[in-house]
Amino acid sequence: MITLYTWTTPNGRKVPIMLEETGLAYEVRPVNLGNNEQFSSDFLAISPNNKIPAIVDDEAEGSPLTLFESGAILTYLAEKTGRFLAPPGPARYKALEWTYWQVGGQGPMLGQLGFFAKRSDEKAPLAIKRFTDEADRLLTVMERRLAEVPYLAGDTYTIADIAAYPWTVAATTFLKDVLTDSLATKPSLHRWLKEVGERPAVQRGMAVPKL
Amino acid sequence: MITLYTWTTPNGRKVPIMLEETGLAYEVRPVNLGNNEQFSSDFLAISPNNKIPAIVDDEAEGSPLTLFESGAILTYLAEKTGRFLAPPGPARYKALEWTYWQVGGQGPMLGQLGFFAKRSDEKAPLAIKRFTDEADRLLTVMERRLAEVPYLAGDTYTIADIAAYPWTVAATTFLKDVLTDSLATKPSLHRWLKEVGERPAVQRGMAVPKL
Ligand SMILES: N[C@@H](CCC(=O)N[C@@H](CS)C(=O)NCC(=O)O)C(=O)O
Ligand SMILES: N[C@@H](CCC(=O)N[C@@H](CS)C(=O)NCC(=O)O)C(=O)O
Repeated sequence: MITLYTWTTPNGRKVPIMLEETGLAYEVRPVNLGNNEQFSSDFLAISPNNKIPAIVDDEAEGSPLTLFESGAILTYLAEKTGRFLAPPGPARYKALEWTYWQVGGQGPMLGQLGFFAKRSDEKAPLAIKRFTDEADRLLTVMERRLAEVPYLAGDTYTIADIAAYPWTVAATTFLKDVLTDSLATKPSLHRWLKEVGERPAVQRGMAVPKL
Repeated sequence: MITLYTWTTPNGRKVPIMLEETGLAYEVRPVNLGNNEQFSSDFLAISPNNKIPAIVDDEAEGSPLTLFESGAILTYLAEKTGRFLAPPGPARYKALEWTYWQVGGQGPMLGQLGFFAKRSDEKAPLAIKRFTDEADRLLTVMERRLAEVPYLAGDTYTIADIAAYPWTVAATTFLKDVLTDSLATKPSLHRWLKEVGERPAVQRGMAVPKL
């Protein structure tokens, strides 16, 4: 059985989507970030970077396997099930390229935009401008890609789409007012959002954790 | 033959270190970020996110394979050569976990610190404080890990160390004055830096591109 440590945030939703897509059995342990539960010593033993998501798989080889970082967890689950990430060859590396793009770019930059533009009471106009521009640049990169191919990695739905979906939803909801102009010129991104969002596993994953 | 598009920056050095470690033949094409060469249409065809590093491997399966994102490139080269990333099993996923930690955390947060504390003429104290604190937190996570095990993934040197080395060097050089207090309390990090930095392939990779 897989135990999933997560919260109601974009990074927290990537892993339940993958678990729902693959049909693996799992149980959810909410880690309330509002109460700083990510700094408890129990959780730090699993996730030394004090962030969700993290998993423990007590049926892994050399089990129990504890794992943090959404991209590593998605890759682990893909390799465990043989799904949503091709074996070595071009399709695999395109999927990893866009998964790393999400974890190294889209995620942290939208995250910083959320902090400076929405969550912080003190305002730093330089930082708001920097991260608004960077978010627009990243969404434009995504738009150009999705105007050429149906999914981020190409012809098939992969862990790259699973990683990018919750953050792209956040761009159109939590961050909507800051990104109105950028979102108005992204038809392919909206096409992809609708298509991915209609997958039943994605809908179930986006509802985790139930509180 | 592999063509490497890179520049004299921390992300740019990860890939030449890996190429030197594996002994693969490659040629270097410097992409001068100071001249905005990352926005040229030739380079965007290879790296649609307008960032270095990127590679083209004209001997890949389904070649030529173009690939951007340092973490994806390191994984590709590891799987091509069978080196510095174990096959499925706990050692593999610990290496991927710390590689994603580097690409999703250490890299972008030290990068933002560099922008706000060093490169920007306009000063935003809120942003400088946020990224100084975050850099200290991340270096502390790294210190705790390296006090327990010799390398980020555990007992062996992997792509996680290759990813983290150039950015940790940047923390102790370019960002040194901002991080003096944090660096003063990181003996295991310095032990690891010295050991990794003594590898001949690391020294050769850190000297790429030669201008
Ligand atoms: N690179 C990490 C980022 C994870 C992350 O930023 N998680 C946030 C929630 S979306 C978190 O746990 N924040 C709590 C904290 O930073 O204290 C991943 O992809 O898993
Ligand atoms: N997540 C990317 C980050 C790459 C990155 O930030 N590259 C910087 C140089 S260290 C760059 O090309 N900057 C040019 C620009 O942003 O225009 C990776 O790991 O490859």
